[in-house]
Amino acid sequence: MKQVLTRKKNQALLALSELLVENEQELLAQNARDVENARQRGVKDALVDRLALTSPRIRDMGASCRHIMALKDPVGEVFDSFVREDGLRIEKIRVPIGAIGIIYESRPNVTVDATILALKTGNAVLLRGGSDALYSNLALANLVKRSLQQAELPASAVEIIEDPDRELVGEMLRQRGVLDLVIPRGSSSLISRVVEQSQVPVLETGVGVCHIFVDESAQLQKSIRVVDNAKTQRPGTCNTLETLLVHAAIAPRFLPALKRALDEKNVELRGCPRTLDILDIAPATEQDWDTEYLDLVLSIRIVDSVDEAIDHVQRHSTSHSDSILSENYRNIQLFLQRVDSAAVYVNASTRFTDGGEFGFGAEMGISTQRLHARGPVGLRELTTYKYLVHGDYHVR
Amino acid sequence: MKQVLTRKKNQALLALSELLVENEQELLAQNARDVENARQRGVKDALVDRLALTSPRIRDMGASCRHIMALKDPVGEVFDSFVREDGLRIEKIRVPIGAIGIIYESRPNVTVDATILALKTGNAVLLRGGSDALYSNLALANLVKRSLQQAELPASAVEIIEDPDRELVGEMLRQRGVLDLVIPRGSSSLISRVVEQSQVPVLETGVGVCHIFVDESAQLQKSIRVVDNAKTQRPGTCNTLETLLVHAAIAPRFLPALKRALDEKNVELRGCPRTLDILDIAPATEQDWDTEYLDLVLSIRIVDSVDEAIDHVQRHSTSHSDSILSENYRNIQLFLQRVDSAAVYVNASTRFTDGGEFGFGAEMGISTQRLHARGPVGLRELTTYKYLVHGDYHVR
Repeated sequence: MKQVLTRKKNQALLALSELLVENEQELLAQNARDVENARQRGVKDALVDRLALTSPRIRDMGASCRHIMALKDPVGEVFDSFVREDGLRIEKIRVPIGAIGIIYESRPNVTVDATILALKTGNAVLLRGGSDALYSNLALANLVKRSLQQAELPASAVEIIEDPDRELVGEMLRQRGVLDLVIPRGSSSLISRVVEQSQVPVLETGVGVCHIFVDESAQLQKSIRVVDNAKTQRPGTCNTLETLLVHAAIAPRFLPALKRALDEKNVELRGCPRTLDILDIAPATEQDWDTEYLDLVLSIRIVDSVDEAIDHVQRHSTSHSDSILSENYRNIQLFLQRVDSAAVYVNASTRFTDGGEFGFGAEMGISTQRLHARGPVGLRELTTYKYLVHGDYHVR
Repeated sequence: MKQVLTRKKNQALLALSELLVENEQELLAQNARDVENARQRGVKDALVDRLALTSPRIRDMGASCRHIMALKDPVGEVFDSFVREDGLRIEKIRVPIGAIGIIYESRPNVTVDATILALKTGNAVLLRGGSDALYSNLALANLVKRSLQQAELPASAVEIIEDPDRELVGEMLRQRGVLDLVIPRGSSSLISRVVEQSQVPVLETGVGVCHIFVDESAQLQKSIRVVDNAKTQRPGTCNTLETLLVHAAIAPRFLPALKRALDEKNVELRGCPRTLDILDIAPATEQDWDTEYLDLVLSIRIVDSVDEAIDHVQRHSTSHSDSILSENYRNIQLFLQRVDSAAVYVNASTRFTDGGEFGFGAEMGISTQRLHARGPVGLRELTTYKYLVHGDYHVR
């Protein structure tokens, strides 16, 4: 593997941002074929909307290219080193993972967004997009290839699979030793299928059933603002709050005030039996505690202690993002230690679990698995490392 | 997950080291049943030897316990942190991976060695040892459980599967969400089977076809010492040299001197056609370049340049450990950059790729995969991380 100069990678990103704008008409024409096909097959409007390209969406993809261009290249960074007593010097240096397969569903912007993150980190990419978006994806991948050629990089660093019948996905997942990593992006059923079938290591970006526990000592007005933000700022995202746990001692004062705030945002509330004693809302079923609504719905449960709150989180959290609002040092420490999610918050909205908010500049998704990377998967998480060992004819 | 105090984990390790010695007779008796069964089934002597426990081997296991006890516990270490402009403070803290399945073959010492590394890092362990060693493994696991109880830790942190017919291995590999990691230890066929079948992430510790390239500018006498060490110091290990690449300009002087040194150690040499012009040895076949001998055999190939050497390594290396011996700055840089193995050496023996030699204190094996961990898998590599985020009612 020959290391690709950062300058060349950035040159390709700049070229792509220009090619996207220059070829807008062609992209829109190819996308129109996909949209027409989808309509004829009776695909729902919401899904057709995810599939559709527009001038602003194409401009956004170009902006992403220039944004990734400006980020620091993590490849080549020596991030740890030690010298043995005999003088042997050992360094750990970041290198690309290798060849990454990306399996995704209808949104064609993933073709650009995921590819440029992988390319910036020196990885080769094999794309398998949704059959719905085939013409759009082929047109976009063609522009990526042209941008690589303009930077004198091998166009073969990006390949797209034409696979209308899903036959090749299985083949792709058997490419152990050829592909180093597969990243599924899309529905939880897609992710499960990839995890179950793949012989190639998988980076799982999963669902978020996120919690906030409002402790007895929490500041009321500020807590309402945090809960409101976590639920309503962008309800369709994986780091959105789905279940609120409230300490029994504060519930009679907190919940009515919270309801007034959330009513203004049209949030539907569902409560445990004790919540129903305080609020006139629908009851929550057992299923609610395990549901990622991705919508303006919030389930509420009253608990008697931080231990009960932690217990609920441990049972129902998808280990994405969970938060405690409290002024009590001991309860905060317990929550931080015993809740084992990718991101555990004190006095903050769960909405911060995001590559951009964490300062990574961009992200491939939020990992809810435990190996390699947890939380936002940015450029650094798309690299691995090797050891460089410098000796003077050292023997053991 | 409640964090286990380091003191308690060390208490269990100390207890285990004592229990092993106190229960030597019982361990030897149980092991004798396994050995007798193996002999009756006609198992080869070499394999019976791997299976057999002896007083010194039991003492070695006890010593391992005390050794791991003395190592620093990586769990709880905050190893990165950053503060956003709005004051939100984000920390990365090491946590246990969770529940680790270990699938291994006949050597019963793995029952102790692998388990104590996993326990020291706060992980739970599910063991599936070879059916050959069932009675030995049950006796050893029983002692591990007793040591946990003595430290008032849950004995259920270690469980062993009795599975004489291998039926439960498949079941184990389907425990996605229950097991967080599976580590296969043993033959390459065992490892392949686990990788192919597992829905649980796998940490692959693979084979080592390791190379040394002796460049034109290398110091001759010192290079002979390094090659000798890499080949003969312990030929059965995965970081042992298997193929030597020699620059054509130095070969006529280097190879005869090397042969004299290796003849004294009874190393069998096999050469490419150009090597046979210089040395009176057997020819190497195409298969030799991809063979991990794990024995006193060395294949030799003459190359005309560092590029040709790198090309050979890229084709045949298993990405474990590869070394260049050279005084030429440019060639060294090329080799370091373009050889993408877990450990890439300059002027040193490949034998240093080892958790002990790297200062990790111990290791679970040498990872030849690219995700999560490469090279020696020590305590730190048996952990993952989570983010702790400290706010003051921050909203996005």
